[in-house]
Amino acid sequence: MSGLWYDENFQDDTRLGLRAIRTHFSGRSEYQKVEIFETKRFGRVLAIDEIFMTSERDEYFYHEMLVHPALTCHADPKRVLVIGGGDGGTVREVLRHNVDKVVMIEIDELVVRASQEHLPTIGTAWDDPRLEVRFDDGIKYVCESDDEKYDIVLLDGTDPVGPGEVLFEKRFYEGCKRMLKPGGVFALQSETVFLFEDVFVETQQKLRELFAQVHPYFGPVPIYASGQWSWTMASDSRAPADADVSRIEALEAHTKYYCRDIHKGAFAMPNHVRKRLAAL
Amino acid sequence: MSGLWYDENFQDDTRLGLRAIRTHFSGRSEYQKVEIFETKRFGRVLAIDEIFMTSERDEYFYHEMLVHPALTCHADPKRVLVIGGGDGGTVREVLRHNVDKVVMIEIDELVVRASQEHLPTIGTAWDDPRLEVRFDDGIKYVCESDDEKYDIVLLDGTDPVGPGEVLFEKRFYEGCKRMLKPGGVFALQSETVFLFEDVFVETQQKLRELFAQVHPYFGPVPIYASGQWSWTMASDSRAPADADVSRIEALEAHTKYYCRDIHKGAFAMPNHVRKRLAAL
Repeated sequence: MSGLWYDENFQDDTRLGLRAIRTHFSGRSEYQKVEIFETKRFGRVLAIDEIFMTSERDEYFYHEMLVHPALTCHADPKRVLVIGGGDGGTVREVLRHNVDKVVMIEIDELVVRASQEHLPTIGTAWDDPRLEVRFDDGIKYVCESDDEKYDIVLLDGTDPVGPGEVLFEKRFYEGCKRMLKPGGVFALQSETVFLFEDVFVETQQKLRELFAQVHPYFGPVPIYASGQWSWTMASDSRAPADADVSRIEALEAHTKYYCRDIHKGAFAMPNHVRKRLAAL
Repeated sequence: MSGLWYDENFQDDTRLGLRAIRTHFSGRSEYQKVEIFETKRFGRVLAIDEIFMTSERDEYFYHEMLVHPALTCHADPKRVLVIGGGDGGTVREVLRHNVDKVVMIEIDELVVRASQEHLPTIGTAWDDPRLEVRFDDGIKYVCESDDEKYDIVLLDGTDPVGPGEVLFEKRFYEGCKRMLKPGGVFALQSETVFLFEDVFVETQQKLRELFAQVHPYFGPVPIYASGQWSWTMASDSRAPADADVSRIEALEAHTKYYCRDIHKGAFAMPNHVRKRLAAL
């Protein structure tokens, strides 16, 4: 076995390291460095600019939790927009629902091409005829597009550092809201509270200025910094309690993490988070 | 700043590294190596045999979650036994309740002495007159002692490797049950499902053979391998829904993580865990 470790180094004081057995892909687009390598514990791992994005073994936490709360809370989601999500896990989970059309806008074609070739266990739905993949700027799209609106907008984006910063700006969330039909639901990853508490709280604040219902929820993602993650569901009309329980039950045949109990439990707020959000 | 990293190496394929600013304590007892060092992100960190045990910044997750579900579910906990817990965080949380007596049995005096001197923000209750600390073998104690029984037994132990293995044996859980009064509640850490799923499931099985009510629950512990952890509450008469809500509310003045919502939400079982336990 190789003696090489691949470390994600967080602010030069904390690191998560995975022993790299071999490299499957290494390339650079105009946007970023894209690597896929093999590990024993996590299977194949996708890293972008040396940050772990997903892995074969733990991807279900992130993808199930980004997708299913929003879709099960919508009354009848037919058209879904995914911004980012180049590894294909998010659209795979969306396509488990009875949807008509999924548009995925990913800025970096290299992420999709590398994932299609080297992460086949994650992106199992690339050939679904309901899916349309466009290589384009998601921010420009939501702010300017005249396309038909969507029932669901999912933001499967990166951390608020460098090019990802704009994904945490209010004008971008306004664009996401602009793309929603009445009764629509927006969901996004909203970072780890443990390491990015201020970013998390500011995100909640910006979303509250735009949506009547804003509900963060929490779950594990072992390969992400701190191992705990948050997502947020925002809507003008739909709340967690509006979930269609029979649709959640049907998903339970496929999901590893998400289920009826988790749908309820994940919205439980840690005491100090509850207090900070109550003070907003 | 120092260029030294302290890595917890999990089965030689995954590691969590913390940059060590300086060492506060390093010693070896007849049982194990004990180290306390300073980090930027986690404050002071206690490591035993190169496994992170707790840190100033994230200790509240583990200690609140081990202690409060069991104590709030008991009708009127007065006598509490803590096995292990040498850093002092568990007894600190126990002593927030209206208890008469807490006995802590820790096998390694060095852990307590080092923590008392170098982890003062964690062990803030060492001088409480209700606390009695004994340096003794907790396993022998629960299996053989003729002492008065307890309302609560808390197992604040280590991983099931090497000397910690016995903490996952059925005869030890029988001893813990033996020390409970009628209406008593036993709680223990039950490892990370992500990395130790079989140990977790076997623990549930052993406890189910001994207790009428066995309820695992889940939460984050950023400094532990995978970042997600589980604990289990076991009792012949008390279940999570028996919690005294007014006592949880009173705790919310102090706790950072545990609260009414988390008490309910933490017992939500991931879908694949639910399926495995249903098949037992």
